[in-house]
Amino acid sequence: MLKEMLINVRKKSPLVHNITNYVTVNDCANILLACGGSPIMADDVEEAAEITAICGGLNINIGTLNARTIPAMHVAGKKANELGHPVVLDPVGAGASTLRTKTANDLIREIKFTVIRGNSSEIKTLALGAGTTRGVDADIADSVTKDNLEQAVAFAKEFSKKTGAVVAITGAIDIVADDKTAYCIFNGHPMMSSITGTGCQLSALTAAYVTANPDTPLEATAAAVCAMGICGEKAYSRLSKEDGNATYRNYIIDAVYHLSGEELERLARYEIR
Amino acid sequence: MLKEMLINVRKKSPLVHNITNYVTVNDCANILLACGGSPIMADDVEEAAEITAICGGLNINIGTLNARTIPAMHVAGKKANELGHPVVLDPVGAGASTLRTKTANDLIREIKFTVIRGNSSEIKTLALGAGTTRGVDADIADSVTKDNLEQAVAFAKEFSKKTGAVVAITGAIDIVADDKTAYCIFNGHPMMSSITGTGCQLSALTAAYVTANPDTPLEATAAAVCAMGICGEKAYSRLSKEDGNATYRNYIIDAVYHLSGEELERLARYEIR
Amino acid sequence: MLKEMLINVRKKSPLVHNITNYVTVNDCANILLACGGSPIMADDVEEAAEITAICGGLNINIGTLNARTIPAMHVAGKKANELGHPVVLDPVGAGASTLRTKTANDLIREIKFTVIRGNSSEIKTLALGAGTTRGVDADIADSVTKDNLEQAVAFAKEFSKKTGAVVAITGAIDIVADDKTAYCIFNGHPMMSSITGTGCQLSALTAAYVTANPDTPLEATAAAVCAMGICGEKAYSRLSKEDGNATYRNYIIDAVYHLSGEELERLARYEIR
Repeated sequence: MLKEMLINVRKKSPLVHNITNYVTVNDCANILLACGGSPIMADDVEEAAEITAICGGLNINIGTLNARTIPAMHVAGKKANELGHPVVLDPVGAGASTLRTKTANDLIREIKFTVIRGNSSEIKTLALGAGTTRGVDADIADSVTKDNLEQAVAFAKEFSKKTGAVVAITGAIDIVADDKTAYCIFNGHPMMSSITGTGCQLSALTAAYVTANPDTPLEATAAAVCAMGICGEKAYSRLSKEDGNATYRNYIIDAVYHLSGEELERLARYEIR
Repeated sequence: MLKEMLINVRKKSPLVHNITNYVTVNDCANILLACGGSPIMADDVEEAAEITAICGGLNINIGTLNARTIPAMHVAGKKANELGHPVVLDPVGAGASTLRTKTANDLIREIKFTVIRGNSSEIKTLALGAGTTRGVDADIADSVTKDNLEQAVAFAKEFSKKTGAVVAITGAIDIVADDKTAYCIFNGHPMMSSITGTGCQLSALTAAYVTANPDTPLEATAAAVCAMGICGEKAYSRLSKEDGNATYRNYIIDAVYHLSGEELERLARYEIR
Repeated sequence: MLKEMLINVRKKSPLVHNITNYVTVNDCANILLACGGSPIMADDVEEAAEITAICGGLNINIGTLNARTIPAMHVAGKKANELGHPVVLDPVGAGASTLRTKTANDLIREIKFTVIRGNSSEIKTLALGAGTTRGVDADIADSVTKDNLEQAVAFAKEFSKKTGAVVAITGAIDIVADDKTAYCIFNGHPMMSSITGTGCQLSALTAAYVTANPDTPLEATAAAVCAMGICGEKAYSRLSKEDGNATYRNYIIDAVYHLSGEELERLARYEIR
């Protein structure tokens, strides 16, 4: 099942419009190419709708948002909705500033998202109006663990019901849920949090997966999340003693470049609740 | 001949002003350093002319253009013309949006470019007012192949005549032409298209080459295009089984760092038409 | 002594707000993670003060400054001063344009900086109103050498006295000084200047060090400068024959990821004047 998701990305080579932060944008572009997709970045309001229209999917990431790019996010999102294109939201740092929380909430109100992907603090902020975001990282108090997994799954399903989006809460354990079904995903490696932008990269990857699999957004998102986690594991196993987070960043993208459908299917570790 | 072009870059260490997109800007800076040049990035209209004036050459790349940076492109371009500095245009995504096509056309009308470098779809858009740009990548319908090479050469010469610029159309086969002479270049590797920004990097590299070789822009551009292709080949040959596009990106820049004039001369594969 | 500085960074994991250029921002984020800190980038005036408030320290870097981000630098700097948070200034390209020189001078007048870190040309421009900045690199005429070291130390102490900041002038020999004491640091490798943004990365690293060691800014800055230099040496020793500046960039960040307090203490080469 996950296998088909990946194969469709390689086959269809989805073109994804990204309005994203300038910190991790290069990695987002390279991971989209690695998975078999094709990236275009454009954030000026004058061209946003037109670029969205020539693409298959849209990825909105609010990191380093500003007064100039926020209107472009709205324009692009509305155009994507109008055309029935999948749209992913990555609410980077929601909870860290009023501007970020407000922008994420405004976007969710005005645009129908296919997927909302964030860490637990960001998603809590959006769902409950309060979280304990520590900058752009999740606060430990918000972590999903084996002990609170049941609660976290119910929370994700509830937020999916409210927004109509597949909800992906990523961390040590990842949850990917629609209003009825949740994938609890155990792939990944702790060292992934020592690289800037693994979350941003995953959102870009997810946009490619849902664009290539428009009828199965839940499975497509779960496949993207498993793929990223597996690549984090594979890349970690390649590291030599002197390699650190910079080499690890490259190896994760390299692993995405080589990941096959068969491997994704075989190495994915998840349960459905 | 190509050899001297490279040697001049290493000897003169040209300082290049880049107004470029935020996706691939870091790679552009590192490839400029790798070849022996020196980069400075500045895109605010208030300092654009002054930065251009202290540099030897200018590289204008319209990827992620916006209302704030477009005026800076014009101001910098005019100052470079005034001072007789070489100017390179990379019309990223021309044809993908009205704003990009218009901006590229406006720039070509108002600024005398030394080199215009793009993929076949971008250049067709600018020359013919129509192309089939697929986002920031060339459409397959526009590809230069052995079968249409003669036509493509004539087209490049014609566009060079019209603009007064050396025209570089890069893809599987690269064409570098002025109004009379064309280099058809066969270096490179297909995997280069799996990295974001090899085109942007080549434009930055070209800016260094034409700045260090102001009297021979055709040969300097051909040398830069051959150098990039050769480095794509050399980097590919270093890849291990698990290396993907991220490592490949690093190895190409590494190869530019080490490329010698002798190697460039020996490994360049081209014919002159 | 230097050892404790590093250990505090790893222990406290300081959250650093960066308003920085888009050329080297990804490397700044990854080096902050590598050293044990945590980065957040935010440059819109509407959220700047709020992001500063949730962080422990602030790093202002004026590369690719623009009309939109300059006010955010002021707002964030004032908030950091109000809260007693350490603030680092990296005056990238001061002397290269009127806008950069004016912006750096305005910031120094209005904000109390904990550390000002730049190359010799940038610092001369700010201290004397004149330098011979070559783009974003120091001019050779301004270099600190064994012959002019005594003078350079006196100059750094004088500028520290004037600004109240620890002054870090980095190059072949680095000087880190307050008004009374100067560390002359001999670590590093010439190849570091073939990578874009080693200076920017060092400023980000310094911000993490002074944030984790608020009572000893001189020693913390000296420790950060030694750490960067040592990592430049260690990374250089890993390079294979075909590796160039791109791989070197990754290896330096990797080395920061692994550097221990014991190594920092043992490998630091400096004298105190």
